[in-house]
Amino acid sequence: MKRSIEDTPVVFIGAGNLATNLAVALYRKGFRVVQIYSRTEESARTLAQAVEADYTTSLSGVSTDAQLYVVSVKDDALTELLPQLTAGREKALWVHTAGSIPMDIWQGHAERYGVFYPLQTFSKRRLVDFREIPIFVEGRTEEDVRFLKQIASALSHKVLEATSEQRRNLHLAAVFTCNFTNHMYALAERLLQKHDLPFDVLLPLIDETARKVHELSPRLAQTGPAVRYDTGVMDKHLDMLADEPEMQQLYRLLSDDIHRLA
Amino acid sequence: MKRSIEDTPVVFIGAGNLATNLAVALYRKGFRVVQIYSRTEESARTLAQAVEADYTTSLSGVSTDAQLYVVSVKDDALTELLPQLTAGREKALWVHTAGSIPMDIWQGHAERYGVFYPLQTFSKRRLVDFREIPIFVEGRTEEDVRFLKQIASALSHKVLEATSEQRRNLHLAAVFTCNFTNHMYALAERLLQKHDLPFDVLLPLIDETARKVHELSPRLAQTGPAVRYDTGVMDKHLDMLADEPEMQQLYRLLSDDIHRLA
Repeated sequence: MKRSIEDTPVVFIGAGNLATNLAVALYRKGFRVVQIYSRTEESARTLAQAVEADYTTSLSGVSTDAQLYVVSVKDDALTELLPQLTAGREKALWVHTAGSIPMDIWQGHAERYGVFYPLQTFSKRRLVDFREIPIFVEGRTEEDVRFLKQIASALSHKVLEATSEQRRNLHLAAVFTCNFTNHMYALAERLLQKHDLPFDVLLPLIDETARKVHELSPRLAQTGPAVRYDTGVMDKHLDMLADEPEMQQLYRLLSDDIHRLA
Repeated sequence: MKRSIEDTPVVFIGAGNLATNLAVALYRKGFRVVQIYSRTEESARTLAQAVEADYTTSLSGVSTDAQLYVVSVKDDALTELLPQLTAGREKALWVHTAGSIPMDIWQGHAERYGVFYPLQTFSKRRLVDFREIPIFVEGRTEEDVRFLKQIASALSHKVLEATSEQRRNLHLAAVFTCNFTNHMYALAERLLQKHDLPFDVLLPLIDETARKVHELSPRLAQTGPAVRYDTGVMDKHLDMLADEPEMQQLYRLLSDDIHRLA
């Protein structure tokens, strides 16, 4: 009987935001997630229960007979764990999920390796739908690229190949798009809280700002005082931020930069 | 026969992004938009046609018998136009639509006045649905506040009163939430273009970043290298931005600020 791709035994190294979302998505698609490793027992157990897998908190307890190891730990931890992780498991396919780490980090540690990078923001407490998430794969051999694409295609209909160089630029763009954008929301919330105004009145604006760039290039979608170069309004805003020096500096730089690209 | 609120003759002063969206929304709800004034004939004619109104490009041609004048022009232009606009039309109700301008700008120029501020980003080429848009009203008298609330309620189910002080803070928060957020999208697009990568792979991330803050406070929703204080990744990103000094400076300041509020 021909085995299907879902029968591949998968081990997750890491039980953080990305690992949780990816392991649950694979589990829901019928994949065999066999084991979760995490230094933190609670994280390991919680994710293991969610995907009906075993778990371990010791590296020596990591299963040696999985076919795919998905490593999703902090970037610094990866370099540190790598030699011990791969020892005795060199025949399996090893992938990491980090935007900023090149594929060749695996070189010398494993025979089959690659990268499986879903471009999204993940939180444990919010499980996302993978169907629309672009998944960028990279592999040392064409065979492994094909294999990773097959797995990715079970989750998403946007599966792409990307080199390590492309991926690190995607990741940097994602920091602007997601983390820095979210920080704009956080600063707005802070400002409204100071004036006893609720944050949720901003949600329709947040949604529309996001929707708009589905149709218009962000440069064309820009509105507001900076792009009009309405110095009267901008000066008033800078005055209002006199007691928030960090926000004031950001306001000035961001307005100048909007004007620069306008 | 009792007249309904939709029979109120409304004149729009201005035919820009906000005026276009608001006039069309009122027209679609059955309001009588009788005239559009704009300095630019094409803008005046285009909006007038869309709402079956007359139009004029001269201030002296502005109708004197409307009951409501909605002034939606650049902030500087408002102060300049105000005396000439209101002369001979002091009995009507005058409102502006600007977040940053206090209500008392009307004082001495009109007897009935107020503010009608829909908190949203508007572009002429993209007509938005007003139902979810918070509309903040302010009026000199309780009667005018009631009247403005009635009009706003015909468009949206989120009608609120706000003082000029609250409104200017809402507007400043909106600059962070919308204009600065959109600039993050624009910088990401710029970065991807330099590396021949398409912007649209970021759309699911943009959408999820927006959706997330419907459930979580932005501070709790934050992810990425800055909130983890992953200096390894941040240093690599700063190196990658060596040829984009403005983006590099913004990256540094925004990461520090995320860390500050974490």
